[in-house]
Amino acid sequence: MRIKAVVFDAYGTLYDVQSVAAVTEQAFPGHGDMITQLWRIKQLEYSWLRSLMGRYEDFATVTRDSLAYTLRVLGLASDPATFDRIIDKYLHLELYSDASSALTAMKGCKLAILSNGSPAMLNALVQNSGLDSVLDATISVDAAKIFKPSPQAYALIEPALGVSPADVLFVSSNPWDVSGAKAFGLKVAWIERITPEAMAATCAASDLVPPLTMFKALRTQMDQLGFAPDYRIAALSELPGIVASK
Amino acid sequence: MRIKAVVFDAYGTLYDVQSVAAVTEQAFPGHGDMITQLWRIKQLEYSWLRSLMGRYEDFATVTRDSLAYTLRVLGLASDPATFDRIIDKYLHLELYSDASSALTAMKGCKLAILSNGSPAMLNALVQNSGLDSVLDATISVDAAKIFKPSPQAYALIEPALGVSPADVLFVSSNPWDVSGAKAFGLKVAWIERITPEAMAATCAASDLVPPLTMFKALRTQMDQLGFAPDYRIAALSELPGIVASK
Repeated sequence: MRIKAVVFDAYGTLYDVQSVAAVTEQAFPGHGDMITQLWRIKQLEYSWLRSLMGRYEDFATVTRDSLAYTLRVLGLASDPATFDRIIDKYLHLELYSDASSALTAMKGCKLAILSNGSPAMLNALVQNSGLDSVLDATISVDAAKIFKPSPQAYALIEPALGVSPADVLFVSSNPWDVSGAKAFGLKVAWIERITPEAMAATCAASDLVPPLTMFKALRTQMDQLGFAPDYRIAALSELPGIVASK
Repeated sequence: MRIKAVVFDAYGTLYDVQSVAAVTEQAFPGHGDMITQLWRIKQLEYSWLRSLMGRYEDFATVTRDSLAYTLRVLGLASDPATFDRIIDKYLHLELYSDASSALTAMKGCKLAILSNGSPAMLNALVQNSGLDSVLDATISVDAAKIFKPSPQAYALIEPALGVSPADVLFVSSNPWDVSGAKAFGLKVAWIERITPEAMAATCAASDLVPPLTMFKALRTQMDQLGFAPDYRIAALSELPGIVASK
Protein backbone atom coordinates (compact mmCIF):
# COMPACT_ATOMS: atom_id res chain seq x y z
CA MET A 1 0.00 0.00 0.00
CA ARG A 2 1.43 3.32 -1.05
CA ILE A 3 0.20 6.69 0.10
CA LYS A 4 0.73 9.33 -2.56
CA ALA A 5 -1.58 11.96 -1.16
CA VAL A 6 -2.89 12.92 2.27
CA VAL A 7 -6.22 14.71 2.17
CA PHE A 8 -7.72 16.40 5.21
CA ASP A 9 -11.18 17.29 6.31
CA ALA A 10 -11.10 20.93 7.45
CA TYR A 11 -13.75 21.61 10.10
CA GLY A 12 -13.00 19.72 13.30
CA THR A 13 -9.90 18.06 11.85
CA LEU A 14 -7.41 20.81 10.93
CA TYR A 15 -9.51 23.67 12.27
CA ASP A 16 -11.16 23.82 15.67
CA VAL A 17 -14.85 24.57 15.09
CA GLN A 18 -15.25 24.82 18.84
CA SER A 19 -13.08 27.94 18.74
CA VAL A 20 -16.19 29.89 17.71
CA ALA A 21 -17.34 29.52 21.32
CA ALA A 22 -15.31 32.55 22.41
CA VAL A 23 -17.15 34.75 19.91
CA THR A 24 -20.60 33.33 20.66
CA GLU A 25 -19.96 33.69 24.38
CA GLN A 26 -18.96 37.32 23.90
CA ALA A 27 -22.14 37.96 21.89
CA PHE A 28 -24.42 35.98 24.24
CA PRO A 29 -22.83 35.68 27.69
CA GLY A 30 -23.65 32.37 29.36
CA HIS A 31 -24.81 30.77 26.10
CA GLY A 32 -21.59 30.53 24.09
CA ASP A 33 -20.86 26.85 24.41
CA MET A 34 -24.49 25.86 23.96
CA ILE A 35 -24.84 27.95 20.79
CA THR A 36 -21.62 26.47 19.45
CA GLN A 37 -22.73 22.87 19.98
CA LEU A 38 -26.29 23.25 18.73
CA TRP A 39 -25.15 25.30 15.74
CA ARG A 40 -22.69 22.59 14.70
CA ILE A 41 -25.32 19.84 14.95
CA LYS A 42 -27.84 21.78 12.87
CA GLN A 43 -25.12 22.81 10.37
CA LEU A 44 -24.36 19.14 9.71
CA GLU A 45 -28.04 18.20 9.62
CA TYR A 46 -28.77 20.91 7.07
CA SER A 47 -25.87 19.81 4.88
CA TRP A 48 -27.17 16.21 4.86
CA LEU A 49 -30.83 17.15 4.47
CA ARG A 50 -30.25 19.60 1.61
CA SER A 51 -28.11 16.99 -0.15
CA LEU A 52 -30.77 14.33 0.25
CA MET A 53 -33.57 16.70 -0.81
CA GLY A 54 -31.61 17.66 -3.94
CA ARG A 55 -31.68 21.26 -2.73
CA TYR A 56 -27.99 22.11 -2.42
CA GLU A 57 -27.03 25.55 -1.23
CA ASP A 58 -23.42 26.27 -0.38
CA PHE A 59 -21.94 25.89 3.11
CA ALA A 60 -21.98 29.63 3.73
CA THR A 61 -25.78 29.53 3.42
CA VAL A 62 -26.07 26.37 5.51
CA THR A 63 -23.87 27.91 8.19
CA ARG A 64 -25.97 31.08 8.35
CA ASP A 65 -29.28 29.18 8.34
CA SER A 66 -28.18 26.83 11.12
CA LEU A 67 -26.99 29.73 13.27
CA ALA A 68 -30.33 31.47 12.71
CA TYR A 69 -32.19 28.31 13.79
CA THR A 70 -29.99 27.99 16.87
CA LEU A 71 -30.54 31.55 18.06
CA ARG A 72 -34.27 31.23 17.38
CA VAL A 73 -34.74 27.99 19.32
CA LEU A 74 -32.75 29.39 22.25
CA GLY A 75 -34.86 32.54 22.22
CA LEU A 76 -31.89 34.81 21.57
CA ALA A 77 -32.36 37.92 19.44
CA SER A 78 -29.40 39.20 17.44
CA ASP A 79 -28.77 42.31 15.40
CA PRO A 80 -27.21 41.89 11.93
CA ALA A 81 -23.80 43.13 13.07
CA THR A 82 -23.62 40.57 15.89
CA PHE A 83 -24.80 37.80 13.58
CA ASP A 84 -22.18 38.69 10.98
CA ARG A 85 -19.43 38.92 13.61
CA ILE A 86 -20.18 35.35 14.71
CA ILE A 87 -20.30 34.09 11.12
CA ASP A 88 -17.04 35.85 10.33
CA LYS A 89 -15.28 33.68 12.91
CA TYR A 90 -15.71 30.75 10.51
CA LEU A 91 -13.14 32.46 8.27
CA HIS A 92 -10.69 32.74 11.17
CA LEU A 93 -11.00 29.40 12.97
CA GLU A 94 -7.98 28.35 14.95
CA LEU A 95 -5.74 25.62 13.60
CA TYR A 96 -5.28 22.71 15.96
CA SER A 97 -1.80 22.98 17.42
CA ASP A 98 -0.59 19.78 15.75
CA ALA A 99 -1.66 20.75 12.22
CA SER A 100 1.14 22.90 10.76
CA SER A 101 4.07 20.76 11.84
CA ALA A 102 2.40 17.52 10.68
CA LEU A 103 1.67 18.98 7.26
CA THR A 104 5.20 20.33 6.87
CA ALA A 105 6.64 16.91 7.79
CA MET A 106 4.76 15.27 4.89
CA LYS A 107 5.77 17.60 2.10
CA GLY A 108 6.90 14.59 0.04
CA CYS A 109 3.22 13.69 -0.45
CA LYS A 110 0.58 15.68 -2.18
CA LEU A 111 -1.38 17.48 0.52
CA ALA A 112 -4.91 18.79 0.21
CA ILE A 113 -8.14 19.69 1.96
CA LEU A 114 -11.50 18.21 0.94
CA SER A 115 -14.20 20.13 2.76
CA ASN A 116 -17.88 20.93 2.79
CA GLY A 117 -16.89 24.61 3.00
CA SER A 118 -17.64 26.90 0.09
CA PRO A 119 -14.65 28.00 -2.03
CA ALA A 120 -14.78 31.51 -0.57
CA MET A 121 -14.91 30.21 3.02
CA LEU A 122 -12.06 27.76 2.46
CA ASN A 123 -9.81 30.15 0.59
CA ALA A 124 -10.15 32.73 3.35
CA LEU A 125 -9.59 30.13 6.07
CA VAL A 126 -6.51 28.63 4.40
CA GLN A 127 -4.97 32.03 3.75
CA ASN A 128 -5.75 33.40 7.20
CA SER A 129 -4.11 30.35 8.82
CA GLY A 130 -1.09 30.31 6.51
CA LEU A 131 -1.73 26.80 5.16
CA ASP A 132 -1.75 28.03 1.56
CA SER A 133 2.02 27.55 1.36
CA VAL A 134 1.91 23.82 2.23
CA LEU A 135 -1.26 22.63 0.48
CA ASP A 136 -1.30 21.46 -3.13
CA ALA A 137 -5.06 21.91 -3.40
CA THR A 138 -8.08 23.08 -1.46
CA ILE A 139 -11.04 21.12 -2.79
CA SER A 140 -14.60 22.26 -2.04
CA VAL A 141 -17.57 19.94 -2.47
CA ASP A 142 -19.22 22.93 -4.12
CA ALA A 143 -17.88 21.65 -7.46
CA ALA A 144 -20.18 18.61 -7.06
CA LYS A 145 -23.09 20.55 -5.52
CA ILE A 146 -23.56 17.93 -2.83
CA PHE A 147 -22.06 17.54 0.63
CA LYS A 148 -20.05 14.75 2.24
CA PRO A 149 -20.59 11.86 2.82
CA SER A 150 -21.93 11.58 -0.75
CA PRO A 151 -19.48 9.58 -2.90
CA GLN A 152 -19.67 12.42 -5.44
CA ALA A 153 -17.84 14.62 -2.92
CA TYR A 154 -14.93 12.21 -2.36
CA ALA A 155 -14.73 11.62 -6.13
CA LEU A 156 -13.42 15.19 -6.51
CA ILE A 157 -10.03 14.18 -5.09
CA GLU A 158 -8.79 12.11 -8.04
CA PRO A 159 -9.20 14.73 -10.79
CA ALA A 160 -7.83 17.47 -8.51
CA LEU A 161 -4.66 15.62 -7.48
CA GLY A 162 -4.22 12.96 -10.17
CA VAL A 163 -4.04 10.28 -7.47
CA SER A 164 -6.33 7.23 -7.47
CA PRO A 165 -8.53 6.64 -4.37
CA ALA A 166 -6.54 3.60 -3.20
CA ASP A 167 -3.40 5.76 -2.93
CA VAL A 168 -5.07 8.50 -0.88
CA LEU A 169 -5.01 8.69 2.91
CA PHE A 170 -8.01 10.71 4.04
CA VAL A 171 -7.93 12.17 7.55
CA SER A 172 -11.01 13.22 9.50
CA SER A 173 -12.16 13.59 13.07
CA ASN A 174 -15.80 13.18 12.06
CA PRO A 175 -17.05 9.58 12.34
CA TRP A 176 -19.65 10.07 9.58
CA ASP A 177 -16.92 11.46 7.29
CA VAL A 178 -14.65 8.50 8.08
CA SER A 179 -17.53 6.16 7.18
CA GLY A 180 -18.26 7.99 3.93
CA ALA A 181 -14.64 8.06 2.83
CA LYS A 182 -14.20 4.35 3.55
CA ALA A 183 -17.42 3.52 1.69
CA PHE A 184 -16.02 5.43 -1.29
CA GLY A 185 -12.74 3.50 -1.23
CA LEU A 186 -10.16 5.81 0.32
CA LYS A 187 -7.69 4.80 3.01
CA VAL A 188 -8.82 6.56 6.16
CA ALA A 189 -7.28 7.73 9.41
CA TRP A 190 -9.71 8.74 12.16
CA ILE A 191 -8.32 11.32 14.54
CA GLU A 192 -10.15 11.17 17.84
CA ARG A 193 -10.21 14.83 18.77
CA ILE A 194 -12.37 14.07 21.79
CA THR A 195 -11.65 10.70 23.35
CA PRO A 196 -14.16 9.37 25.88
CA GLU A 197 -11.41 9.66 28.50
CA ALA A 198 -10.71 13.28 27.63
CA MET A 199 -14.40 14.06 27.72
CA ALA A 200 -14.79 12.49 31.15
CA ALA A 201 -11.78 14.41 32.43
CA THR A 202 -13.09 17.68 31.02
CA CYS A 203 -16.46 17.17 32.62
CA ALA A 204 -14.94 16.29 35.98
CA ALA A 205 -12.57 19.26 35.95
CA SER A 206 -14.97 21.98 34.86
CA ASP A 207 -18.48 23.23 35.17
CA LEU A 208 -19.28 21.80 31.75
CA VAL A 209 -23.01 21.25 31.83
CA PRO A 210 -24.64 17.96 30.83
CA PRO A 211 -26.17 19.05 27.51
CA LEU A 212 -22.75 19.84 26.11
CA THR A 213 -21.50 16.45 27.16
CA MET A 214 -24.44 14.87 25.38
CA PHE A 215 -23.93 16.84 22.20
CA LYS A 216 -20.36 15.66 22.14
CA ALA A 217 -21.58 12.11 22.76
CA LEU A 218 -23.11 12.24 19.28
CA ARG A 219 -19.62 12.38 17.76
CA THR A 220 -17.08 10.75 20.07
CA GLN A 221 -17.52 7.12 19.02
CA MET A 222 -17.14 5.61 15.57
CA ASP A 223 -20.54 5.44 13.91
CA GLN A 224 -22.20 2.11 13.18
CA LEU A 225 -22.53 2.53 9.45
CA GLY A 226 -20.71 -0.63 8.42
CA PHE A 227 -17.21 0.81 8.01
CA ALA A 228 -14.12 1.15 10.18
CA PRO A 229 -11.06 3.37 9.73
CA ASP A 230 -7.70 1.92 8.69
CA TYR A 231 -5.94 3.94 11.37
CA ARG A 232 -7.03 5.52 14.64
CA ILE A 233 -4.81 8.34 15.78
CA ALA A 234 -4.83 10.70 18.74
CA ALA A 235 -2.85 13.50 17.07
CA LEU A 236 -1.93 14.59 13.54
CA SER A 237 1.73 14.17 14.55
CA GLU A 238 1.24 10.40 14.09
CA LEU A 239 0.60 10.81 10.37
CA PRO A 240 4.17 11.29 9.06
CA GLY A 241 5.13 7.95 10.60
CA ILE A 242 2.17 6.19 9.00
CA VAL A 243 2.93 7.69 5.60
CA ALA A 244 6.65 6.87 5.83
CA SER A 245 6.00 3.23 6.71
CA LYS A 246 4.03 2.61 3.50
CA MET B 1 -57.25 23.15 -4.08
CA ARG B 2 -58.69 19.68 -3.51
CA ILE B 3 -57.38 17.14 -1.08
CA LYS B 4 -57.98 13.60 -2.31
CA ALA B 5 -55.61 11.80 -0.01
CA VAL B 6 -54.15 12.41 3.44
CA VAL B 7 -50.80 10.72 4.01
CA PHE B 8 -49.20 10.51 7.42
CA ASP B 9 -45.68 10.15 8.66
CA ALA B 10 -45.67 7.36 11.26
CA TYR B 11 -42.92 7.86 13.84
CA GLY B 12 -43.54 10.96 15.93
CA THR B 13 -46.73 11.86 14.03
CA LEU B 14 -49.23 9.00 14.48
CA TYR B 15 -47.05 6.98 16.86
CA ASP B 16 -45.26 8.32 19.90
CA VAL B 17 -41.59 7.34 19.55
CA GLN B 18 -41.04 8.76 23.03
CA SER B 19 -43.19 5.91 24.36
CA VAL B 20 -40.11 3.65 24.15
CA ALA B 21 -38.82 5.56 27.20
CA ALA B 22 -40.77 3.32 29.58
CA VAL B 23 -39.01 0.24 28.20
CA THR B 24 -35.55 1.81 28.13
CA GLU B 25 -36.06 3.10 31.68
CA GLN B 26 -37.02 -0.38 32.84
CA ALA B 27 -33.92 -1.85 31.17
CA PHE B 28 -31.56 0.91 32.35
CA PRO B 29 -33.02 2.70 35.38
CA GLY B 30 -32.17 6.39 35.43
CA HIS B 31 -31.15 6.43 31.76
CA GLY B 32 -34.45 5.81 29.97
CA ASP B 33 -35.18 9.28 28.69
CA MET B 34 -31.58 9.94 27.72
CA ILE B 35 -31.36 6.68 25.76
CA THR B 36 -34.65 7.46 24.04
CA GLN B 37 -33.55 10.93 22.92
CA LEU B 38 -30.04 10.03 21.82
CA TRP B 39 -31.27 6.88 20.04
CA ARG B 40 -33.79 8.90 18.03
CA ILE B 41 -31.19 11.46 16.98
CA LYS B 42 -28.75 8.77 15.84
CA GLN B 43 -31.53 6.80 14.14
CA LEU B 44 -32.36 9.84 11.99
CA GLU B 45 -28.69 10.62 11.36
CA TYR B 46 -28.04 7.06 10.19
CA SER B 47 -31.04 7.12 7.86
CA TRP B 48 -29.76 10.34 6.25
CA LEU B 49 -26.11 9.30 6.15
CA ARG B 50 -26.78 5.86 4.65
CA SER B 51 -29.03 7.47 2.03
CA LEU B 52 -26.37 10.02 1.14
CA MET B 53 -23.59 7.39 1.09
CA GLY B 54 -25.66 5.21 -1.24
CA ARG B 55 -25.51 2.46 1.40
CA TYR B 56 -29.18 1.89 2.20
CA GLU B 57 -30.06 -0.71 4.80
CA ASP B 58 -33.63 -0.94 6.02
CA PHE B 59 -34.96 0.93 9.05
CA ALA B 60 -34.86 -2.18 11.22
CA THR B 61 -31.08 -2.27 10.75
CA VAL B 62 -30.74 1.49 11.25
CA THR B 63 -32.83 1.26 14.42
CA ARG B 64 -30.69 -1.54 15.86
CA ASP B 65 -27.40 0.15 14.89
CA SER B 66 -28.42 3.46 16.42
CA LEU B 67 -29.47 1.80 19.67
CA ALA B 68 -26.15 -0.04 19.77
CA TYR B 69 -24.30 3.25 19.31
CA THR B 70 -26.37 4.89 22.03
CA LEU B 71 -25.73 2.20 24.63
CA ARG B 72 -22.02 2.15 23.72
CA VAL B 73 -21.54 5.91 24.04
CA LEU B 74 -23.39 5.94 27.37
CA GLY B 75 -21.23 3.06 28.61
CA LEU B 76 -24.24 0.76 29.13
CA ALA B 77 -23.81 -2.98 28.53
CA SER B 78 -26.85 -4.97 27.40
CA ASP B 79 -27.51 -8.64 26.93
CA PRO B 80 -29.21 -9.74 23.67
CA ALA B 81 -32.57 -10.35 25.39
CA THR B 82 -32.67 -6.82 26.83
CA PHE B 83 -31.60 -5.33 23.52
CA ASP B 84 -34.31 -7.24 21.66
CA ARG B 85 -36.94 -6.27 24.23
CA ILE B 86 -36.18 -2.59 23.65
CA ILE B 87 -36.22 -3.00 19.87
CA ASP B 88 -39.50 -4.91 20.05
CA LYS B 89 -41.16 -1.81 21.50
CA TYR B 90 -40.86 -0.21 18.06
CA LEU B 91 -43.51 -2.70 16.89
CA HIS B 92 -45.84 -1.66 19.73
CA LEU B 93 -45.49 2.12 19.88
CA GLU B 94 -48.43 3.93 21.34
CA LEU B 95 -50.75 5.83 19.03
CA TYR B 96 -51.16 9.48 19.92
CA SER B 97 -54.56 9.89 21.49
CA ASP B 98 -55.85 12.08 18.66
CA ALA B 99 -54.92 9.65 15.86
CA SER B 100 -57.75 7.13 15.56
CA SER B 101 -60.67 9.54 15.73
CA ALA B 102 -59.07 11.94 13.24
CA LEU B 103 -58.47 9.14 10.76
CA THR B 104 -62.00 7.80 11.13
CA ALA B 105 -63.42 11.27 10.53
CA MET B 106 -61.67 11.50 7.15
CA LYS B 107 -62.76 8.19 5.64
CA GLY B 108 -64.01 10.03 2.54
CA CYS B 109 -60.36 10.60 1.58
CA LYS B 110 -57.77 8.03 0.77
CA LEU B 111 -55.70 7.57 3.90
CA ALA B 112 -52.16 6.21 4.05
CA ILE B 113 -48.87 6.13 5.89
CA LEU B 114 -45.56 6.99 4.20
CA SER B 115 -42.79 6.02 6.56
CA ASN B 116 -39.09 5.27 6.79
CA GLY B 117 -40.03 2.06 8.59
CA SER B 118 -39.39 -1.27 6.94
CA PRO B 119 -42.45 -3.15 5.62
CA ALA B 120 -42.22 -5.69 8.44
CA MET B 121 -41.97 -2.96 11.11
CA LEU B 122 -44.86 -0.97 9.67
CA ASN B 123 -47.15 -3.91 9.10
CA ALA B 124 -46.68 -5.05 12.69
CA LEU B 125 -47.15 -1.52 14.03
CA VAL B 126 -50.31 -0.87 12.02
CA GLN B 127 -51.85 -4.21 12.96
CA ASN B 128 -50.92 -3.94 16.62
CA SER B 129 -52.50 -0.50 16.84
CA GLY B 130 -55.61 -1.42 14.84
CA LEU B 131 -55.07 1.15 12.09
CA ASP B 132 -55.16 -1.51 9.38
CA SER B 133 -58.95 -1.13 9.16
CA VAL B 134 -58.85 2.61 8.32
CA LEU B 135 -55.75 2.90 6.11
CA ASP B 136 -55.89 2.39 2.35
CA ALA B 137 -52.13 1.84 2.13
CA THR B 138 -49.03 1.59 4.26
CA ILE B 139 -46.14 2.76 2.12
CA SER B 140 -42.56 2.02 3.14
CA VAL B 141 -39.62 3.91 1.64
CA ASP B 142 -38.00 0.50 1.38
CA ALA B 143 -39.49 0.21 -2.12
CA ALA B 144 -37.21 3.10 -3.17
CA LYS B 145 -34.21 1.99 -1.07
CA ILE B 146 -33.67 5.52 0.20
CA PHE B 147 -35.03 7.38 3.22
CA LYS B 148 -37.00 10.59 3.54
CA PRO B 149 -36.46 13.45 2.79
CA SER B 150 -35.28 12.15 -0.59
CA PRO B 151 -37.81 13.05 -3.30
CA GLN B 152 -37.71 9.38 -4.36
CA ALA B 153 -39.41 8.51 -1.07
CA TYR B 154 -42.32 10.95 -1.50
CA ALA B 155 -42.67 9.85 -5.13
CA LEU B 156 -43.96 6.48 -3.88
CA ILE B 157 -47.31 8.03 -2.91
CA GLU B 158 -48.67 8.63 -6.41
CA PRO B 159 -48.35 5.07 -7.77
CA ALA B 160 -49.60 3.61 -4.49
CA LEU B 161 -52.74 5.76 -4.23
CA GLY B 162 -53.29 7.01 -7.78
CA VAL B 163 -53.41 10.59 -6.51
CA SER B 164 -51.15 13.32 -7.89
CA PRO B 165 -48.83 15.17 -5.46
CA ALA B 166 -50.79 18.43 -5.64
CA ASP B 167 -53.92 16.61 -4.35
CA VAL B 168 -52.14 15.02 -1.38
CA LEU B 169 -52.05 16.50 2.11
CA PHE B 170 -48.99 15.12 3.89
CA VAL B 171 -48.92 15.34 7.68
CA SER B 172 -45.76 15.19 9.77
CA SER B 173 -44.48 16.40 13.11
CA ASN B 174 -40.88 16.29 11.88
CA PRO B 175 -39.66 19.65 10.53
CA TRP B 176 -37.15 17.99 8.17
CA ASP B 177 -39.96 15.78 6.80
CA VAL B 178 -42.22 18.80 6.31
CA SER B 179 -39.41 20.50 4.38
CA GLY B 180 -38.78 17.45 2.21
CA ALA B 181 -42.45 16.94 1.40
CA LYS B 182 -42.89 20.60 0.47
CA ALA B 183 -39.76 20.50 -1.69
CA PHE B 184 -41.25 17.51 -3.51
CA GLY B 185 -44.53 19.31 -4.15
CA LEU B 186 -47.04 17.91 -1.65
CA LYS B 187 -49.40 20.01 0.42
CA VAL B 188 -48.14 19.79 3.97
CA ALA B 189 -49.53 20.14 7.48
CA TRP B 190 -47.01 20.40 10.28
CA ILE B 191 -48.26 19.12 13.60
CA GLU B 192 -46.33 20.67 16.45
CA ARG B 193 -46.17 17.77 18.87
CA ILE B 194 -43.89 19.74 21.17
CA THR B 195 -44.59 23.45 21.13
CA PRO B 196 -41.99 25.73 22.69
CA GLU B 197 -44.60 26.64 25.30
CA ALA B 198 -45.31 22.99 26.15
CA MET B 199 -41.60 22.29 26.38
CA ALA B 200 -41.07 25.21 28.75
CA ALA B 201 -44.00 24.07 30.89
CA THR B 202 -42.71 20.50 30.97
CA CYS B 203 -39.28 21.62 32.03
CA ALA B 204 -40.63 23.89 34.74
CA ALA B 205 -43.00 21.24 36.10
CA SER B 206 -40.65 18.27 36.19
CA ASP B 207 -37.10 17.24 36.89
CA LEU B 208 -36.45 17.02 33.17
CA VAL B 209 -32.72 17.51 32.88
CA PRO B 210 -31.17 20.03 30.48
CA PRO B 211 -29.77 17.59 27.90
CA LEU B 212 -33.24 16.31 27.13
CA THR B 213 -34.50 19.82 26.67
CA MET B 214 -31.70 20.45 24.26
CA PHE B 215 -32.28 17.30 22.26
CA LYS B 216 -35.87 18.36 21.83
CA ALA B 217 -34.65 21.81 20.84
CA LEU B 218 -33.28 20.20 17.69
CA ARG B 219 -36.82 19.45 16.50
CA THR B 220 -39.30 21.94 18.00
CA GLN B 221 -38.93 24.73 15.47
CA MET B 222 -39.46 24.62 11.72
CA ASP B 223 -36.12 24.05 10.02
CA GLN B 224 -34.53 26.72 7.84
CA LEU B 225 -34.35 24.72 4.65
CA GLY B 226 -36.23 27.13 2.44
CA PHE B 227 -39.73 25.69 2.84
CA ALA B 228 -42.74 26.36 5.06
CA PRO B 229 -45.79 24.17 5.72
CA ASP B 230 -49.19 25.06 4.29
CA TYR B 231 -50.84 24.41 7.66
CA ARG B 232 -49.60 24.42 11.23
CA ILE B 233 -51.76 22.39 13.57
CA ALA B 234 -51.61 21.52 17.25
CA ALA B 235 -53.62 18.29 17.04
CA LEU B 236 -54.68 15.79 14.38
CA SER B 237 -58.29 16.65 15.23
CA GLU B 238 -57.86 19.84 13.18
CA LEU B 239 -57.36 17.86 9.98
CA PRO B 240 -60.97 16.90 9.14
CA GLY B 241 -61.89 20.58 9.13
CA ILE B 242 -59.01 21.45 6.81
CA VAL B 243 -59.89 18.62 4.43
CA ALA B 244 -63.62 19.49 4.43
CA SER B 245 -62.95 23.15 3.61
CA LYS B 246 -61.10 22.28 0.37
